[in-house]
Amino acid sequence: MTPIEKARILMEALPYIKRYHGSTVVVKYGGAAMEDPALAEGFANDIVLMRYVGMNPVVVHGGGPQVSEEVARRGGTPVFVGGYRVTTAGDLEVARMVLGGVINKDIVSLINRHGTLAAGLSGEDGNLLLVRRKEHPDGDLGFVGEIERVNPAILTDLLRDFIPVVASLGVDANGQTYNVNADEVAAALAGALGADKLVYLTNVEGIQDAAGRLLTQIGAEKVSELKANGVISSGMLPKIESALEAIKSGVPKVTVLDGRTEHALLLEIFTDQGVGTMVTA
Amino acid sequence: MTPIEKARILMEALPYIKRYHGSTVVVKYGGAAMEDPALAEGFANDIVLMRYVGMNPVVVHGGGPQVSEEVARRGGTPVFVGGYRVTTAGDLEVARMVLGGVINKDIVSLINRHGTLAAGLSGEDGNLLLVRRKEHPDGDLGFVGEIERVNPAILTDLLRDFIPVVASLGVDANGQTYNVNADEVAAALAGALGADKLVYLTNVEGIQDAAGRLLTQIGAEKVSELKANGVISSGMLPKIESALEAIKSGVPKVTVLDGRTEHALLLEIFTDQGVGTMVTA
Amino acid sequence: MTPIEKARILMEALPYIKRYHGSTVVVKYGGAAMEDPALAEGFANDIVLMRYVGMNPVVVHGGGPQVSEEVARRGGTPVFVGGYRVTTAGDLEVARMVLGGVINKDIVSLINRHGTLAAGLSGEDGNLLLVRRKEHPDGDLGFVGEIERVNPAILTDLLRDFIPVVASLGVDANGQTYNVNADEVAAALAGALGADKLVYLTNVEGIQDAAGRLLTQIGAEKVSELKANGVISSGMLPKIESALEAIKSGVPKVTVLDGRTEHALLLEIFTDQGVGTMVTA
Amino acid sequence: MTPIEKARILMEALPYIKRYHGSTVVVKYGGAAMEDPALAEGFANDIVLMRYVGMNPVVVHGGGPQVSEEVARRGGTPVFVGGYRVTTAGDLEVARMVLGGVINKDIVSLINRHGTLAAGLSGEDGNLLLVRRKEHPDGDLGFVGEIERVNPAILTDLLRDFIPVVASLGVDANGQTYNVNADEVAAALAGALGADKLVYLTNVEGIQDAAGRLLTQIGAEKVSELKANGVISSGMLPKIESALEAIKSGVPKVTVLDGRTEHALLLEIFTDQGVGTMVTA
Amino acid sequence: MTPIEKARILMEALPYIKRYHGSTVVVKYGGAAMEDPALAEGFANDIVLMRYVGMNPVVVHGGGPQVSEEVARRGGTPVFVGGYRVTTAGDLEVARMVLGGVINKDIVSLINRHGTLAAGLSGEDGNLLLVRRKEHPDGDLGFVGEIERVNPAILTDLLRDFIPVVASLGVDANGQTYNVNADEVAAALAGALGADKLVYLTNVEGIQDAAGRLLTQIGAEKVSELKANGVISSGMLPKIESALEAIKSGVPKVTVLDGRTEHALLLEIFTDQGVGTMVTA
Amino acid sequence: MTPIEKARILMEALPYIKRYHGSTVVVKYGGAAMEDPALAEGFANDIVLMRYVGMNPVVVHGGGPQVSEEVARRGGTPVFVGGYRVTTAGDLEVARMVLGGVINKDIVSLINRHGTLAAGLSGEDGNLLLVRRKEHPDGDLGFVGEIERVNPAILTDLLRDFIPVVASLGVDANGQTYNVNADEVAAALAGALGADKLVYLTNVEGIQDAAGRLLTQIGAEKVSELKANGVISSGMLPKIESALEAIKSGVPKVTVLDGRTEHALLLEIFTDQGVGTMVTA
Repeated sequence: MTPIEKARILMEALPYIKRYHGSTVVVKYGGAAMEDPALAEGFANDIVLMRYVGMNPVVVHGGGPQVSEEVARRGGTPVFVGGYRVTTAGDLEVARMVLGGVINKDIVSLINRHGTLAAGLSGEDGNLLLVRRKEHPDGDLGFVGEIERVNPAILTDLLRDFIPVVASLGVDANGQTYNVNADEVAAALAGALGADKLVYLTNVEGIQDAAGRLLTQIGAEKVSELKANGVISSGMLPKIESALEAIKSGVPKVTVLDGRTEHALLLEIFTDQGVGTMVTA
Repeated sequence: MTPIEKARILMEALPYIKRYHGSTVVVKYGGAAMEDPALAEGFANDIVLMRYVGMNPVVVHGGGPQVSEEVARRGGTPVFVGGYRVTTAGDLEVARMVLGGVINKDIVSLINRHGTLAAGLSGEDGNLLLVRRKEHPDGDLGFVGEIERVNPAILTDLLRDFIPVVASLGVDANGQTYNVNADEVAAALAGALGADKLVYLTNVEGIQDAAGRLLTQIGAEKVSELKANGVISSGMLPKIESALEAIKSGVPKVTVLDGRTEHALLLEIFTDQGVGTMVTA
Repeated sequence: MTPIEKARILMEALPYIKRYHGSTVVVKYGGAAMEDPALAEGFANDIVLMRYVGMNPVVVHGGGPQVSEEVARRGGTPVFVGGYRVTTAGDLEVARMVLGGVINKDIVSLINRHGTLAAGLSGEDGNLLLVRRKEHPDGDLGFVGEIERVNPAILTDLLRDFIPVVASLGVDANGQTYNVNADEVAAALAGALGADKLVYLTNVEGIQDAAGRLLTQIGAEKVSELKANGVISSGMLPKIESALEAIKSGVPKVTVLDGRTEHALLLEIFTDQGVGTMVTA
Repeated sequence: MTPIEKARILMEALPYIKRYHGSTVVVKYGGAAMEDPALAEGFANDIVLMRYVGMNPVVVHGGGPQVSEEVARRGGTPVFVGGYRVTTAGDLEVARMVLGGVINKDIVSLINRHGTLAAGLSGEDGNLLLVRRKEHPDGDLGFVGEIERVNPAILTDLLRDFIPVVASLGVDANGQTYNVNADEVAAALAGALGADKLVYLTNVEGIQDAAGRLLTQIGAEKVSELKANGVISSGMLPKIESALEAIKSGVPKVTVLDGRTEHALLLEIFTDQGVGTMVTA
Repeated sequence: MTPIEKARILMEALPYIKRYHGSTVVVKYGGAAMEDPALAEGFANDIVLMRYVGMNPVVVHGGGPQVSEEVARRGGTPVFVGGYRVTTAGDLEVARMVLGGVINKDIVSLINRHGTLAAGLSGEDGNLLLVRRKEHPDGDLGFVGEIERVNPAILTDLLRDFIPVVASLGVDANGQTYNVNADEVAAALAGALGADKLVYLTNVEGIQDAAGRLLTQIGAEKVSELKANGVISSGMLPKIESALEAIKSGVPKVTVLDGRTEHALLLEIFTDQGVGTMVTA
Repeated sequence: MTPIEKARILMEALPYIKRYHGSTVVVKYGGAAMEDPALAEGFANDIVLMRYVGMNPVVVHGGGPQVSEEVARRGGTPVFVGGYRVTTAGDLEVARMVLGGVINKDIVSLINRHGTLAAGLSGEDGNLLLVRRKEHPDGDLGFVGEIERVNPAILTDLLRDFIPVVASLGVDANGQTYNVNADEVAAALAGALGADKLVYLTNVEGIQDAAGRLLTQIGAEKVSELKANGVISSGMLPKIESALEAIKSGVPKVTVLDGRTEHALLLEIFTDQGVGTMVTA
């Protein structure tokens, strides 16, 4: 490709750069984009580019598979109820170790290869995520938290100079830590920060209808219909429901993206060629 | 081209975006890039992109051909001495009209198609360029000014919110306006602002040696040699000499670019494929 | 006069200095005060004094006679419809040259004899004056703009350190420049800046009634009556109508002054001896 | 006088307003200017005008005659040694009452007739004047303080919004108050604030030579000569000596003025017709 | 006592330090706490500790006994009407001297033994207390002021770096000074500053009921009842009535304390063992 | 104990509160103070009190015993060389989990029982601790880092609103994490922040001489002597050597405290009764 052709492509990004300048974008990071080293590196690049062209990206992550792996290694068996990991005291310990100690800092380091850019924290820091024990109709979830309030002070302090990377753990009024669903964390932070955009990186093409066809857009009504028909998977459910919550709390644009696609985030932000499903009110 | 290929090209720009983030770049605008509507539009795009990815571009322009045209229309004949326009009182009036009243605002409007971004001024505003009458060994130049001091306050005030576009006129201590060579203005502003980069857009490929070969780099010594041999054209001389001045006053990188190339500025900033001559100490 | 007498006179100004401290005053500059060198110098002095005693003066100017002169020199004939100059593409070019390139910077230089105080701009800079083509019942006005919106950011940026001097040109959404009536510009800026006072410097004693007697005050009703009787001249009409507009948009005090009087502005601001007509709601 | 003549006189002040804009001027207030109600009102007007045209006046006062009067009323007899009041514990009490409680607030009220402008304090507030007991070769002075250090924080806090009025009392490291010579206070504050000007208002025309002729200027050498000849009065001595101290600590202009002249301060600041003696190095 | 026991006691203060962090506390200082040197020193210590642990104390004082003493010394006889000192012109002079000149600065010095902490002012400074002549049904009070408006600018300027100490004097629109009841001053300042707490230091245990029993709490209704029964003393009346005013203007907590108790203020702020009466709505 | 006695004890703390107001204190937390729940709670209280009375505490922690326990549980055997844990890739993973994921957040939660006060991070965040692989004469240490540079930006950002709690991990230029000795981290941060005090909480009474007597003070020379005699334990060595480093980089006061004593920190800060050894140059 000639330099001129390259310049023209760069120029194509200009309208998108203008549109998102100064905006806050919360990205739920997970799935293949986190596990595949090449995709992970591409993700870090995308986030850094977003920061450099004037956006304020906030990264939220969980780490289900890694937690399950460590639980298994300790002889435990992961149990899920309604898409939520039933979290014993021992599982919680593992979750804190894996999410806060390892995955969080690995993401920070990946981004910081580009400079002093990222800082990791969990919902326990600065009481960022105040939670209470989550009740579930299908059984006791153990140490799974439901978000009651977000204290965004620590995020806004860090956003001046850093890209915050947030592990999906919360704390209750007594200082007890809880495991929190990362999709719910992303939605709550997007709402509390008044984010302009919320993006979920997933391991699927997007949301599909009963016939398995990709939906480029989905609203609350259609969600109800698909849920009633049992079409939405238990892994996708927290994403869609928290997405609808985020929209209610004022986030103008929420998208479920295929994180298996190289530079999915970049394509979503800088082109009109989205690669997933847009969730609307 | 597939979206992924586009994303990859965008990603190639990241190292350059990082390198120039927060930097001030003075661009001497002129020649074909100013006269050819498509090139002019490309130039405006390039400047806007630079601003959006975190640079502080400052545009400096003259407008020799347009001034000559208007002088001719009024029955005058442009006269040049040592590359400088001999400027009668009437010519000065024409220069102020054409540079400050028309060209300056045309550039502002071209950039402002992208939003409220540019603001035009001349070296007369806020006493930006304090000059005295220039002495020249080859004859009286009339109202041609030599820069004595830069008062950058008005530029720094505007740079917070705007891209400044500066017409190459100056003022002396008595309030008398003078025509100033735009290359010299660009170099003086780059020095006074502590700019990270100074770029001259020209109508040639770059600086050539006696054999007509493009030089990708040239230093003070080589300049002396080429001058002695009469190889450097009178139009190129102020560029090279002011470039050497800018380097002396601390500007770390000065380049003479071929403005006839589409997106020359973009290529120079965002790729390693420069399309001109780098001037060094 | 003895020093003590001088001191007493200075002291007489104190109540006015207190009253206007920190206030923004928009001055429409034109007529004899602009053409007579002694009056012009006096005007610059007045503006500088206003700035030094704590006011924020903003100067707005047109330049009808100078534009007409240049149009005539190019073989054109100025045509006016309803007090507006019918502006061909060529006339617009002349207006930009004369207003933005020469008159604007001459005013700046006149003020800057007192220090680095003034900075010139036109309504094209920073999209200060967004206009559309003006419709007129009596015929096509050509490139005459009607103000739709004021973007005062560039003025407020400059007001921190400078006295802004604004040429009466505007720009539409496509970047096309238009000639704008300077009285309307002054009124629109006064409204947008929340100015405390708007002053028009004219070539008449003030507004006169049908019998030719100077009115020291005039309201909307009386204006209608005089208009109906054809007593108000076409040159005075834009002043009075824009004055009424300014009052509607909240400017508390609007005055039409005789600019042929030496230091008319100073007398208006610093004494109770006004030399013109106050316009009221 | 016609309005135009008044305007011209106002305009004559412009160069002085420009020169002193933003400058700090310490004024030692006392003598007839303090005792004569008309002069006192004129003094307040002068100070207010100075503030409104952009200066930062600081007023320092003593109140010897009023203190003597109260001491006498209590049956005491004022005693002076080398121009300093010998201050018993009872005299100190009187000085604090009269200076801090009455005179200070009277000056504040006089100025505040023009608005919320002045705030009074003594050298005891915020440890503004840290002093030690003054030693004198001619005898024990009692509670007379010699300034050791100025803590200007309280003055700079107040100068943002107020005209500080300072009573000439100081405090030592143990919290003991002392009477301090007001001329010395004025000089010390001028030095500590980096003032541009220090003015003493006195009851004499200025400093005179042995033949009783007014000196328009006097330097250190001439002071020594006059002192040796016993020509300088004991009341003038602290003024001249502290004036020389102020000059040493960098105050560029120090003047001894005849406070019996109406608007002496205004004439000194806003005209070239000074009415006293300029002290130089 | 062992170090550990001391540490534990320090730790007991933590909840109170947390509760009052950043809060503004107005303290009406007077009575034994002002007259007994040991109590006065303890008071200064308490105020300094409050400032260091993050509160903003404001001290208000009168000085009735000292004023009476000086009035008597001058041959006058203090007269009181309804708890207010009938203030002749001579008495006012004495009040200004004693309150503003001596007591105010004594308190400042006492606090400043701990560093550069306090700054004194009276309600005359910066027009802090704008008053009018107080009308009283039981007779003419002379120069006794009723507070009309508080201009808190000077207090907020000083609070950044200092503990303000305010003498209970006010000024009317003509610059005439008035004596003001210090309890009323404290209440008015607490209201104007949005204080979190108002404390009166008195010479009694607190407010007592008809049987002479200490009330730990009292409301408006009970006040009316006690007043009707003539149980409340004339000295306590201004305290209680201004306390009720302060509560109406939003001060959440008002307490009448026994200033004869060592460290009464400290006990009130840092423990639950109050030593007086809390006034409620 | 009576309230008055309590008040007196509180007052005894005032000189210490004054002395340390606004100062930064780095506390190396560990040993019994971390493992004993009552001591841990007391530690949190001490830190919170320090913050509330105006200090900026920074907590640094390791967690050797907890890491060893987890390593053992995974079947590994902790190996130490020269006081440093030989850290295999697996051990490093454990250290990151235990230090960053669990201990760090436990400390944060303990402090946050008092409010939203603490925020945890590791040396990996914001590239706080840039390290390289540590060389040791006695053998390969594996992933043990030696601090090369501190980037304090993230700490200074957090210190505005939070108490930072730092886990002793660092990162090299390639993004590889390393285990770092927590004593060295505390000393490096104290130096980089210009801390006023550095405190090590240990499990011993302090530093002892060859005869086992507690030294209340020790200097570099004495350290050399004790080292030569083999008197200093391998666990104490990094403390003493990093303490000497901190002193060299300008930390004025460094103390080794007995963390087994209740409120050891409080006693050290707020009384003269230190409970350990002060290290001097």
